[in-house]
Amino acid sequence: MAQVQRMSRLMVKTLRDDPADAETLNHKLLVRAGYVRRTAAGIWTWLPLGKKVYENIARVVREEMDAIGGQEVLLPALLPKEPYEESGRYEEYGDLLFRLKDRKGADYLLGPTHEEIFTQVVKDQCSSYKDLPVILYQIQTKYRDEARPRAGVLRGREFQMKDSYSFDTTDEGLAEAYALHRGAYQRIFERLGLDYRIVSAISGAMGGSASEEFLAPAPAGEDTFADCPACDYAANTEAVTFALAPVDGSAHGPVEELDTPDTPTIETLAEHLGVPASATLKNLLVKVDGEIVAVGVPGDREVDLGKLGEHLAPAEVELVTAEDFEGRDDLVRGYVGPQGLEKVRYIADPRVAPGTAWITGANKQDKHAKNVVCGRDFEVDQYLDVVVVEEGDPCPACGTGLRLDRAIEIGHIFQLGRKYADTFQLDVLGKEGKPVRVTMGSYGIGVSRAVAALAEQTADDKGLCWPKEVAPADVHLVAAGKALQTELALDVAEKLGAAGVRVLVDDRAGVSPGVKFTDAELIGVPQILVAGRRSAEGVLELKDRRTGEREELTVDEAIARLSA
Amino acid sequence: MAQVQRMSRLMVKTLRDDPADAETLNHKLLVRAGYVRRTAAGIWTWLPLGKKVYENIARVVREEMDAIGGQEVLLPALLPKEPYEESGRYEEYGDLLFRLKDRKGADYLLGPTHEEIFTQVVKDQCSSYKDLPVILYQIQTKYRDEARPRAGVLRGREFQMKDSYSFDTTDEGLAEAYALHRGAYQRIFERLGLDYRIVSAISGAMGGSASEEFLAPAPAGEDTFADCPACDYAANTEAVTFALAPVDGSAHGPVEELDTPDTPTIETLAEHLGVPASATLKNLLVKVDGEIVAVGVPGDREVDLGKLGEHLAPAEVELVTAEDFEGRDDLVRGYVGPQGLEKVRYIADPRVAPGTAWITGANKQDKHAKNVVCGRDFEVDQYLDVVVVEEGDPCPACGTGLRLDRAIEIGHIFQLGRKYADTFQLDVLGKEGKPVRVTMGSYGIGVSRAVAALAEQTADDKGLCWPKEVAPADVHLVAAGKALQTELALDVAEKLGAAGVRVLVDDRAGVSPGVKFTDAELIGVPQILVAGRRSAEGVLELKDRRTGEREELTVDEAIARLSA
Repeated sequence: MAQVQRMSRLMVKTLRDDPADAETLNHKLLVRAGYVRRTAAGIWTWLPLGKKVYENIARVVREEMDAIGGQEVLLPALLPKEPYEESGRYEEYGDLLFRLKDRKGADYLLGPTHEEIFTQVVKDQCSSYKDLPVILYQIQTKYRDEARPRAGVLRGREFQMKDSYSFDTTDEGLAEAYALHRGAYQRIFERLGLDYRIVSAISGAMGGSASEEFLAPAPAGEDTFADCPACDYAANTEAVTFALAPVDGSAHGPVEELDTPDTPTIETLAEHLGVPASATLKNLLVKVDGEIVAVGVPGDREVDLGKLGEHLAPAEVELVTAEDFEGRDDLVRGYVGPQGLEKVRYIADPRVAPGTAWITGANKQDKHAKNVVCGRDFEVDQYLDVVVVEEGDPCPACGTGLRLDRAIEIGHIFQLGRKYADTFQLDVLGKEGKPVRVTMGSYGIGVSRAVAALAEQTADDKGLCWPKEVAPADVHLVAAGKALQTELALDVAEKLGAAGVRVLVDDRAGVSPGVKFTDAELIGVPQILVAGRRSAEGVLELKDRRTGEREELTVDEAIARLSA
Repeated sequence: MAQVQRMSRLMVKTLRDDPADAETLNHKLLVRAGYVRRTAAGIWTWLPLGKKVYENIARVVREEMDAIGGQEVLLPALLPKEPYEESGRYEEYGDLLFRLKDRKGADYLLGPTHEEIFTQVVKDQCSSYKDLPVILYQIQTKYRDEARPRAGVLRGREFQMKDSYSFDTTDEGLAEAYALHRGAYQRIFERLGLDYRIVSAISGAMGGSASEEFLAPAPAGEDTFADCPACDYAANTEAVTFALAPVDGSAHGPVEELDTPDTPTIETLAEHLGVPASATLKNLLVKVDGEIVAVGVPGDREVDLGKLGEHLAPAEVELVTAEDFEGRDDLVRGYVGPQGLEKVRYIADPRVAPGTAWITGANKQDKHAKNVVCGRDFEVDQYLDVVVVEEGDPCPACGTGLRLDRAIEIGHIFQLGRKYADTFQLDVLGKEGKPVRVTMGSYGIGVSRAVAALAEQTADDKGLCWPKEVAPADVHLVAAGKALQTELALDVAEKLGAAGVRVLVDDRAGVSPGVKFTDAELIGVPQILVAGRRSAEGVLELKDRRTGEREELTVDEAIARLSA
């Protein structure tokens, strides 16, 4: 075992300044401390220290996947097009997919995720219910041609993932595999020392427990999640729901038409009438599979088109264009109101509850209407949660105002069901001798991304600061002085190494103690042991990288302490 | 640690028949025993058993690379075109390179080998002679778009390699890094249990020790190598040399012209004259960078155009076509002789030594000449070893007739010198304060290929038969019977696992002992332990997979023996 790494020989070059293109903490620090190096946009080289952290994370992931009975395999990254055409994802992925041809002109892709190929493997290898359940996993390089690769190894175009897939004959089996993964992921992230939240990833309408994300709160995160300061509710913002609560609308007066010249937007209307935007009803026209549909939300809220698209999938949602209004006298652009839209399907957010009254378009140029009451003056064809969640929205569980936080998605567990089994006709012979369609789960951990998430969460103003289990060494031993100190440091390093302690020893000649200390703090090994002034007496200084606490110890004490 | 693998849960499906497309032993057996599965031509999935063997090999490689001070890194497989354009390899690789574009239209490739990128990494990370020497390595997926991917994982289009690169400021340093690798490779292949030969890979003319190949003799191998039955000489056939040995040619009579109608080939000429082909001189015309050059070899030998190309590189060698003879009255097709070729450069094999006499073309239609003596009647401009080596050719070391054998190339070590450092201007500041150009070595081991090589070399007519260090388990425990045997087997498996023995236990219900024995022999774990007839007495049978030797042991004896 190579327990002792000498800085004089290790390929690590620290930088005093942040790289010019770095915006996030992990990118700055991992480059400055010599862990990674950019090879191309979103494509990274793992240098020796980075490779060690990466392997430590991979080892923890492997151990916990093995513990739930996962079987490790390795699938190719270069994949034939056909299985992805059958599943429809060859098209769906669009520009995200790296596509290429071989010398014979056959089409290939670089795998972004491997549901199709795993399904084929199991179809080939398993024929009876006795062969299931099975959990297969791999730690493998994946490819996604992100439009804006960013934040260092946090969002690369080439990256490493642990992906696993469960195969069961029953829904209960799938639920069990899902629960096994959920537990394994909790143990993995706890061992790694990551602060994380488990949030539901899909709105309740689609089955609350079918998909959860593991999010590591960090300012550099690309995901926003909502969490409740009063209860334990937390969800991806796309999964936050608002309960439909009808109110008594009988006290509202009759619909009244208002003269509102040149007020085609909510802003112009609210200003003209001197009312808050929240008193108005915003009616967004979209095309769903080519048909015009109106979507109603309170005037102060935004429609989340992604969320709308997910609710209506596989139907395709597009914005309307000027041509769509041609020959449609019922649609007066900028002055649409649900009370006159008989030929148009009306979808509304639950905030537009039965009994609520609104100022909305009168379906005439330059005219609006007030006292337009939901359920009296118009009907909602379908309620869907489609507004962009905002800070302070009520918690679906307890009503307290939600907080919005940024986070890095480090894991995702998903009950896929029979989607891919249907595509590839994955059946096994059941107990009763009849074919049974298999049900699947898919589960991912971003291994390279976890390096970035850990860097983000644990770094301080001096540099990286790794949790013990992932650190590239257990102790960073600094020879702060001349030959005497270097000799002592190398001697102690050897003893520590023999005791199973992973040591990084800074034995560089011609480098000042100050530079060595700064490098040690930047590199972020949890314990820093210094052979300094009192080396002649055999006294070392042990410093905790995180707390900065210092303590003088004899060589024997230091070895006993660190190898404990 | 997951020491115990239960066959009832392991995803392994053995096949009784060879796959239809399999021609080589490793391909047949690795598929039949459930180690690998084809995903596309030359693109393979490693199933659980295969992944274990692969990881065992990778572990040995890592340990020995670490032991010589190698630092593990991980470079991307998806690479920008530019560095490979600078080195010229973007073109040189031709169809072997997988090329692709990203969403912005920028050109990328899938790395076949990484000299360019490693050179850039070192240029970025190392600035002083103090930062060198350094040995960097990675175990990584590589890509080559082979025209004929074959023999299972032996020659894939996606495959796993350990590649390492040494960087030094002096030639002596490079020689030392080369020697370190040579030693590490010997230890690796010995630990893996591979039978191998080290052969020189480039002819002496280019520096005998600059490149050596590690070949594993096997009928499925794609390389041919020559070895001497009398001494320890062994070489890639392209590297076999023939010593130039001038003879006394003074006794030969004068050149005599022969009437030889319709004899444009060696065969027709030899038959017409009733002489052996070896008495005639074959003069092959080629174009070297567009210039016509004649290559002379004995009439019974073939010109190795690949070897000729390597000798003359970077000049390009092509065969002549009919058009090339237009306006060249000095070149009489089929009747060329070196004695009249004043305007043509004449390259000859050392077998055409000064003093030897030949029957050759007279440079006139239907005429040949005899007694054409080298050095008297024609001059050789350049001697190059260009004939295809044949069985029985003299050993360059001792003169004994050489044997030709097939082998798999499992490793290659190469002193690159300053080629890439020159391309990328890789200099470091030397001891004297002046820039010093760096010199490089590159070293490869085919990790996935080693699985195939081991399968080829160790399999017998019953199936695979792994050496201990790479086997997917230490012992294959067969429950040959009903509940009693299964219970005993699982109990013993648990005890062995606790003692650190890796156990594969066949606890499948409803599978006959006969099928289990056949599977155990096919899967090839070195020791087979059977809980059979005498299970009630606690007596097991231990069988050596290779020798077939059997022995009855009590449970305690078996555990003691196997965990020793």
